[in-house]
Amino acid sequence: MRWIRFTSEGRTAYGILEGDRVSEVTGDPFAGYQTTPRNHTLANVKIEVPVMPRTFYAAGLNYVSHVKEVAEKSGIAAQVPAKPDMGYRASNALIAHGETVIIPRDATEAVHYEGELVAVVGRQAKHLRRQDALSCLLGWTIGNDVSERNWQKSDRTFWRSKNTDTFKPMGPWIETEADLDTMTTTVRVNGTVTTRYRTNDMLFGVAEFISTMTQYLTLYPGDIIWMGTDGHSPNLKSGDVVDVEITGIGTLSNPFAREA
Amino acid sequence: MRWIRFTSEGRTAYGILEGDRVSEVTGDPFAGYQTTPRNHTLANVKIEVPVMPRTFYAAGLNYVSHVKEVAEKSGIAAQVPAKPDMGYRASNALIAHGETVIIPRDATEAVHYEGELVAVVGRQAKHLRRQDALSCLLGWTIGNDVSERNWQKSDRTFWRSKNTDTFKPMGPWIETEADLDTMTTTVRVNGTVTTRYRTNDMLFGVAEFISTMTQYLTLYPGDIIWMGTDGHSPNLKSGDVVDVEITGIGTLSNPFAREA
Repeated sequence: MRWIRFTSEGRTAYGILEGDRVSEVTGDPFAGYQTTPRNHTLANVKIEVPVMPRTFYAAGLNYVSHVKEVAEKSGIAAQVPAKPDMGYRASNALIAHGETVIIPRDATEAVHYEGELVAVVGRQAKHLRRQDALSCLLGWTIGNDVSERNWQKSDRTFWRSKNTDTFKPMGPWIETEADLDTMTTTVRVNGTVTTRYRTNDMLFGVAEFISTMTQYLTLYPGDIIWMGTDGHSPNLKSGDVVDVEITGIGTLSNPFAREA
Repeated sequence: MRWIRFTSEGRTAYGILEGDRVSEVTGDPFAGYQTTPRNHTLANVKIEVPVMPRTFYAAGLNYVSHVKEVAEKSGIAAQVPAKPDMGYRASNALIAHGETVIIPRDATEAVHYEGELVAVVGRQAKHLRRQDALSCLLGWTIGNDVSERNWQKSDRTFWRSKNTDTFKPMGPWIETEADLDTMTTTVRVNGTVTTRYRTNDMLFGVAEFISTMTQYLTLYPGDIIWMGTDGHSPNLKSGDVVDVEITGIGTLSNPFAREA
């Protein structure tokens, strides 16, 4: 089942997507919903960010080859995390499928994509055991953790390098069913494949993160957990289009443009 | 003017606090409100977290003596930040004035307070100049950035050391008027003063942070910005009560208890 958030005729709503048909609902998949007789064609609606999270979690270094590459580029020894320490991003930076990533005029050329699996929390949860951890999820979507690598090195935190407005494309929708072990993440720049990896080749899996996190914190409906990325990105420039495709979910596509 | 968020007779609402009288409103101070004929005595309402933020910003190291103390305790050289790099906390950890900070059963004895000034954003803002930066604020409240110092050293991020449920008391209300230069922050443990500092003795002031941040990100109504702390805390234990008082705002008071 696919949940889409969209705008049509000036109204933003959730809908259930089947093929190219969107069946509009009232309410939302978190607090509850009711079907309506309103239907739309996918091509005729504006796709919105699938959920504005209460808390925006991001796993950071969670694929071994990405950890090694980041260390190499930073000129430091690779330190593979020894335990699942969750990080944070900020919701100001979220944009929808199809919207433009704006590269600030003072950003360097080292603007990179990071295609990621995103887990979407569906119900309040604390103290989950690993075997029950995925039960708190509504489903899965796709994120692009756009990063300015020189700011990432020069700033004490990730506030600017990763949380500049428009740096967090997410979508296009939430897929409730997923078979993690069979999924592949593929990233294309202007149609050419630049990164491909097994989505579930994580250092710490989704269930392990959720189990560890919920020993100390409460997850709430609408919280999102970005699971990290593998591979590396070329420098992105004005006019580039980045597609992040994950098997069984769909493709998140966003153009990039430098601020005038 | 003081904005208070409270619950009375099962209803949570905003009100305007004058002396010990709460005048209930409908709506909120961010999107707009209307007065009602309903009045309450402060002592008879349950005080709630004054706002659940869209994004929870925290300045981290922003007072020179605190930077030096943290470095000394960590056995590293003190590095005073060269520019205002903002950090993040998580709203799951927020609790109201009077609510109990629960120390997890596996936390060490090094649980500390950090009494902080909190700026509350009132209107959407981007690209603010320093001289206009404070114009986006609704007002000011008080935060206690409770921290488990050993987790702060052992974990790669602050997710557990600073964002465990109940580790972020905030309140008791939002004061719209403040003369930062005349304000003092005083922290008491069980009634005895343990920390006192000039609230505005910051490395980077509120206006400088907001001006820098909004060159890259949009602030939204309800966002909160915690401004960092000075001084140091004793180890806090079950039964302790920590008061954070800031001149002109009020006193945020919370008991501590270790998880059973």
